[in-house]
Amino acid sequence: MLLTKTNVRSIILSMKKGEDTKQTILECALQLASQVGLESMTIGTLAAETGMSKSGLFAHFQSKEKLQIEIIEHAGHEFASQVVAPALKMPAGIPRVSALVENWIAWGANIKGGCIFVSASTEFSDRPGRVREALLRQQEAWIDSLRRIAQSAIQVGHFRKDIDCDQFAFELYSLLLGFHYYHKLLQDAETKKRQEISLKQLLDKYRQQ
Amino acid sequence: MLLTKTNVRSIILSMKKGEDTKQTILECALQLASQVGLESMTIGTLAAETGMSKSGLFAHFQSKEKLQIEIIEHAGHEFASQVVAPALKMPAGIPRVSALVENWIAWGANIKGGCIFVSASTEFSDRPGRVREALLRQQEAWIDSLRRIAQSAIQVGHFRKDIDCDQFAFELYSLLLGFHYYHKLLQDAETKKRQEISLKQLLDKYRQQ
Repeated sequence: MLLTKTNVRSIILSMKKGEDTKQTILECALQLASQVGLESMTIGTLAAETGMSKSGLFAHFQSKEKLQIEIIEHAGHEFASQVVAPALKMPAGIPRVSALVENWIAWGANIKGGCIFVSASTEFSDRPGRVREALLRQQEAWIDSLRRIAQSAIQVGHFRKDIDCDQFAFELYSLLLGFHYYHKLLQDAETKKRQEISLKQLLDKYRQQ
Repeated sequence: MLLTKTNVRSIILSMKKGEDTKQTILECALQLASQVGLESMTIGTLAAETGMSKSGLFAHFQSKEKLQIEIIEHAGHEFASQVVAPALKMPAGIPRVSALVENWIAWGANIKGGCIFVSASTEFSDRPGRVREALLRQQEAWIDSLRRIAQSAIQVGHFRKDIDCDQFAFELYSLLLGFHYYHKLLQDAETKKRQEISLKQLLDKYRQQ
């Protein structure tokens, strides 16, 4: 179900008093973009969906491209604080990898249309420009997080020293993408179980015996 | 780069005389939709991009929804004949799985914006209706092909008898999705190598020792 004016307003009203209005708008915009696609996110669409004035939104974002980039950057900030940062508080190694995966799944579940980076990546892979560049920066940062988490797992002796951390990042992200597709499109009831089996086997493959 | 009127016309002109016009239009529409998104594919867009008359296109498709469904069904037909059918001509087991993966990669490379099913899945996972249903049918057929190919690999003794063929399908599709994302958005030069390493290890995991 798409966000409606009523539930967008309830999100806005539920935000704590004094929180930055722009952040509130961006959070609504992120939820909408995850469902209708980033390319459909114009200042006009956002005004129509939220019931806010177009001129007020224009004062914040100036152009569709700037709105799209700010949605991506807002999502990147939220992703860092909801997915990566809490994982880094866990002990390095297997517990940290497991936390990262659970946080990623929870992050997608908290966005109406699922992880915005997955949908925006297919939307913008063939659209060169500043939006694609912003998206690429976020995805490179994510893959770098996966690589570093593998490196720290080597340091604490959970992963073997001879593993390729970039290969690990590729395999773990592939697994999460598979989870996303099965969960969102196929709505396969077994998806969580499949992801858990695959993750266990992936960790066993890299594990220090 | 997007398709232009000039190169769309050259595609049409290069089609063999007597080939069905509708199939020709659908092939152009598929290429465009893979780049701009299926949701942007209206009869008006297609007319503007191909230089064909809107009334002529309307006679073929009647509505945007019908056009979108016919693009998906055309893609499904092409996918079956380019990816699945040639793999089924290979000997069952590892050679058939390997052929399927190579055909899938070649299929994506032959479409300007990459595999339409990957992009359409993120676009339509939250849009209930006939387009999503058509897409789901195609994706279920694809996953069924992966499952059957694993079953035939058991029958010829390449895969162990105790494997879960649905789990194999999930893992192989995840790997292909990872390949798609790394290749299309990140444009990582190592992607093909990473996919080959992961595929080899995936096959080893299921292989009869």
